[in-house]
Amino acid sequence: MAPEAEPAGAPTSSSQRLKGTPPRRNGPPRTERRTGEGPPPGTIALEAVSPVVDDGDHPARRLVGETVRISVDVLKPGADLLDASFTLRGPGEAGGSEQFLRSVGNARWEGEFIPRLPGLYHFTLSAWTDRYQTWIAGISTWMDAGEEVSQDLAPGLEILRAVLPQLSGKDRTEAESVLAALEGGDLVKAVRRAGADPLRELVRRFQPRPDRIDSSKEYPVRVERVRAGFAAWYEAFPRSLGASPERSATFREAEERLPEVAAMGFDVLYLPPIHPIGMTARRGRDNRAPAAPGDPGSPWAIGSSEGGHQAIHPDLGTLEDFDHFRRRAEELGLEIALDLAFQCSPDHPWVREHPEWFYHRPDGSIRYAENPPKRYRDIYPLDFGNPQWRELWTELSQVVRFWADQGVRIFRVDNPHTKPFPFWEEMIGEAQRAYPDLIFLAEAFTRPKIMRHLAKLGFSESYTYFTWRNEANELREYFLELYAPPLREFFRPMLFVNTPDILPPVLQRLGRPAFQVRAILAATLSPLWGVYSGYEFLEGDAIPGTEEYRDSEKYRIVHRDPSTPGNLRPLLTRLNRIRRENRALQPGASIGFFPVDQPRLLGYHRSSPDGKNHLLVIANVLPESTVESMVDVPLEALGLPEGAAYRVRDLLTDEVYSWTGRRNYVRLDPAFRVAHVLRVEA
Amino acid sequence: MAPEAEPAGAPTSSSQRLKGTPPRRNGPPRTERRTGEGPPPGTIALEAVSPVVDDGDHPARRLVGETVRISVDVLKPGADLLDASFTLRGPGEAGGSEQFLRSVGNARWEGEFIPRLPGLYHFTLSAWTDRYQTWIAGISTWMDAGEEVSQDLAPGLEILRAVLPQLSGKDRTEAESVLAALEGGDLVKAVRRAGADPLRELVRRFQPRPDRIDSSKEYPVRVERVRAGFAAWYEAFPRSLGASPERSATFREAEERLPEVAAMGFDVLYLPPIHPIGMTARRGRDNRAPAAPGDPGSPWAIGSSEGGHQAIHPDLGTLEDFDHFRRRAEELGLEIALDLAFQCSPDHPWVREHPEWFYHRPDGSIRYAENPPKRYRDIYPLDFGNPQWRELWTELSQVVRFWADQGVRIFRVDNPHTKPFPFWEEMIGEAQRAYPDLIFLAEAFTRPKIMRHLAKLGFSESYTYFTWRNEANELREYFLELYAPPLREFFRPMLFVNTPDILPPVLQRLGRPAFQVRAILAATLSPLWGVYSGYEFLEGDAIPGTEEYRDSEKYRIVHRDPSTPGNLRPLLTRLNRIRRENRALQPGASIGFFPVDQPRLLGYHRSSPDGKNHLLVIANVLPESTVESMVDVPLEALGLPEGAAYRVRDLLTDEVYSWTGRRNYVRLDPAFRVAHVLRVEA
Repeated sequence: MAPEAEPAGAPTSSSQRLKGTPPRRNGPPRTERRTGEGPPPGTIALEAVSPVVDDGDHPARRLVGETVRISVDVLKPGADLLDASFTLRGPGEAGGSEQFLRSVGNARWEGEFIPRLPGLYHFTLSAWTDRYQTWIAGISTWMDAGEEVSQDLAPGLEILRAVLPQLSGKDRTEAESVLAALEGGDLVKAVRRAGADPLRELVRRFQPRPDRIDSSKEYPVRVERVRAGFAAWYEAFPRSLGASPERSATFREAEERLPEVAAMGFDVLYLPPIHPIGMTARRGRDNRAPAAPGDPGSPWAIGSSEGGHQAIHPDLGTLEDFDHFRRRAEELGLEIALDLAFQCSPDHPWVREHPEWFYHRPDGSIRYAENPPKRYRDIYPLDFGNPQWRELWTELSQVVRFWADQGVRIFRVDNPHTKPFPFWEEMIGEAQRAYPDLIFLAEAFTRPKIMRHLAKLGFSESYTYFTWRNEANELREYFLELYAPPLREFFRPMLFVNTPDILPPVLQRLGRPAFQVRAILAATLSPLWGVYSGYEFLEGDAIPGTEEYRDSEKYRIVHRDPSTPGNLRPLLTRLNRIRRENRALQPGASIGFFPVDQPRLLGYHRSSPDGKNHLLVIANVLPESTVESMVDVPLEALGLPEGAAYRVRDLLTDEVYSWTGRRNYVRLDPAFRVAHVLRVEA
Repeated sequence: MAPEAEPAGAPTSSSQRLKGTPPRRNGPPRTERRTGEGPPPGTIALEAVSPVVDDGDHPARRLVGETVRISVDVLKPGADLLDASFTLRGPGEAGGSEQFLRSVGNARWEGEFIPRLPGLYHFTLSAWTDRYQTWIAGISTWMDAGEEVSQDLAPGLEILRAVLPQLSGKDRTEAESVLAALEGGDLVKAVRRAGADPLRELVRRFQPRPDRIDSSKEYPVRVERVRAGFAAWYEAFPRSLGASPERSATFREAEERLPEVAAMGFDVLYLPPIHPIGMTARRGRDNRAPAAPGDPGSPWAIGSSEGGHQAIHPDLGTLEDFDHFRRRAEELGLEIALDLAFQCSPDHPWVREHPEWFYHRPDGSIRYAENPPKRYRDIYPLDFGNPQWRELWTELSQVVRFWADQGVRIFRVDNPHTKPFPFWEEMIGEAQRAYPDLIFLAEAFTRPKIMRHLAKLGFSESYTYFTWRNEANELREYFLELYAPPLREFFRPMLFVNTPDILPPVLQRLGRPAFQVRAILAATLSPLWGVYSGYEFLEGDAIPGTEEYRDSEKYRIVHRDPSTPGNLRPLLTRLNRIRRENRALQPGASIGFFPVDQPRLLGYHRSSPDGKNHLLVIANVLPESTVESMVDVPLEALGLPEGAAYRVRDLLTDEVYSWTGRRNYVRLDPAFRVAHVLRVEA
């Protein structure tokens, strides 16, 4: 019998319930009988906490300076008014500070904070009955209906009396005066004063919360510095940054090339391994075995008699040279990222000093890497589960610590998906506790669920399948997934357009316009994008039928002439400038795909969190021929009324077009342009 | 450097790792450094467990006899083959029994069980490296490539030796023979034998699992008897089941009417409260105050000098009469459901015996129900949070126990959303432990999140917003939500077409065809549906502008003539028969909505879990006039090829139509029919 038997909102409670009692924790229902000692269990439930990853098993990920919105459903039977708060504990803090949440309807409560420091934050949630507001609302309704309310004053008096000792000065005087008026004055006026600020807000803060419930756990949020979520990477082999393909450049020589990279607007210069390279089974030019004399070998075959993961290849110079190089880069606004490739050449010092860290055959020999039926004789994988694993793990953490002590703050991690999950948990956790500004990029080209799990465990950002998503619908589907929950809470996609291992077929096949459009897509689809050097010179020569570069730089020294005519440096430079100048391409911006008549085009808008900066990108994603199409501009996402007239400026060319309403026309002829990046200037 | 440095699948491990070690628990990452004692932490992670509600805080809900599918993602870096199991602990069992899961691709593993008894089940999940299969796969690849494998035998030999003591008879002989052959025989043949059943399966069962990981918690599944998920309810005031509107029927008289209800195919007869009714502030005919002498009062004003929640209204008879009535109903296949309305009339014995259980005004008087500015003077709500709450809660549980002892197994709970959550948790939990076949229906017409939370806490089934969903698109949207996760895991929608409180406007306005179509919708949209008596006689007279019946049965005794011409008993009877005869309308069946050209029609298909029974329902949901339309039959859902010719039989009329392909024609003239319920007979 639904409507009529509903009891009153907040009937008078016994004063005993005002006394502070241990708050209840939200959690699984208790179906066993509770004892009658103390007050009854609280009746409020908390649900649907956000942000949260796997119910709090892993931290949500945010950036310094970003607004972190916290929200929760607060449920209580009946019609009482509620209040709620979150308590935030910053990195290394023992206690937390409480902030009120605000009700946003449909039982949802929200609040936010803006972290100023990187580190691991934790929040808890609490909710309780706002007994004072409930009382004011109820008694006001009775009075409005002309009812006698002298029997309904008690709860309000009781709460005011409880709050009084917390107040001082003017606030206390006002509270005392309201109390007196309630006890014998103009009730209508007294109740109105009782519900007015600042008294109302003070009571909100200080009133007893006998039925308070706390969330069953602390929810973690890992905050990283902005560069973990917004950066343009440039990958270059330092040995190639010299004047000649005949010998390795030194760091001192490579330093001369830093201004060119900085001038293109990149933020991070990522160096493949800079350590001594093994001689045993060294791979020669074009991955031929054996290597010819003078072949420099692959930088990923780490370790020789000259040292291992904490040494610098003598051809590059000394630690001091590296330090000089790093400092010069930083002067130019470029951070250096090093490669963490936890594997060894047969000549690595660890092989001699710690043979127990490797896999063994029954005859005692060390196993090289193998992927039946292939064998990689120049690489010994580390056995992360060997009986002396503790020493190994500690040593690997020490490698990170060593380079961090040298001033390196960014690491690109080679093949994390072939090492144990707990190792990364521990290593990244420890490293970020010591250096909260460390950033780790996971190169986990593996099954999607493993890729995601590594992100959950601590990697700041992750390579993606971008290079293999070429058609408009593939790109749309993939980025909708990346930008939606649950991924958007913990997975930061890094879009490299190429890598030393991946020369995508679309670049091989379509050449220049493909290089152009893939750079535009990467730079505008994610706040994190990257280029492996050579891209700007349209290097597209592959071993046929593969994604491998022909005569790959992995096995030789390459000399590139920065003055090559027609190179893409101007485009890359412009893209990086556009990214810096438009919040719509920075962390927190939203994405939406809009309809285009021609399925060979991809259309999406990017919008800044404050809704003030909107870009429309329309790309001929497989630029084989000219495409003309009408596109359907998503006016509502741009905050434009139906039929609006507005200007769009192509940030790639500075051309300005006058558009009207939804349907507009584009023409993308690869000989002239492969995409529009249009800023809406309403 | 992605592809080439990937280490081998399963390199030889030290034998130490074969020893049993305490399994790791899945859970939040540990970022503190682990000690080096014992083997390294396991490298497997479990994710995305199903079925699960709020990460296991609340049980998923299933029915006896239903296949419960359990699944989980099992993740491990690298290429090793894995194995996984679930361990099921039945109601009241201390230990569990383990069953293997099977890999279904994309890191997903699945298994299932069919519960035979109602109660609370728990499952855990485990996963480990299938070292034996990994070894067989690796060594076979090497042998196929013509490589020498004598150095690769060790892991297999080691595992076989470890398993040997578990084997006996023929199995042991075979294992010993394979071992001998591996140590010095035809290796190709020996490896093939090592990988053949039954040896392979035995090794699977008995091989050591040194890296086993267990789920971090037990996941609960509450299993209820089938009637909790599949039932047709009929609601009737027993006092009206007599021969005269002048006086209350007795249970003995009402018994005479049971065959009529049973003949309509209903499973449950739900009786509004059968307890003594208060005299103080009793409400008269049509909710008038005060009542006239002889007015019977509302059954929800429970309690008088003749007793309270454990008493029977003297006008209905005695406990023995009720018992006789219940037994007779059960003979006819009808279960009795009682109403749990935890509130009191001012004359209830508890008011005198336990005034502390009620709300009080400062002057000591007991507060009646109020919802400012309305007051309900005939009802005293119970104060579930009063200082003596333990006694109150115990007494209310005792009420349930009392009626359960009388043989009642189904309760319809009045207004659960005005009582504390923890009360329901405890009460239902305790009651179902004592009587696992108890069923509780929640009448929580309140905000959706509260409604859902009550279902999570234990209610078997819930009233819904069905009566207020009338347009085709409203119904589609609502039922897509109810049938999708997370709701489908714990929320069982009960669709009453009317209640004593709700006479939907659509029935008032459109009359007979609306009564027809709303019954057809309710009976085919959910396995749980219900009718409040009077519906079959097209009673549609409301207080204007409200959903209240005019001269409501809540306040009087109604006499209905079952022989009224044109009544809907034949339709209700047929609907209940169709539901019994078609698995597509029973628990576990799926639903899908298909396009119809005319937006005033609603088209959906229901399909049985085994895919053998398919119904197409096409309804003129607001049957004001004739609608003709083409409909798009979802051939793929029916397992029919494009362009197929098939027959559809209207189960309401037994007409048969020959249809072809997707596009087919329907005509729904309310004068003749308001809906098709078509069985596909391919």
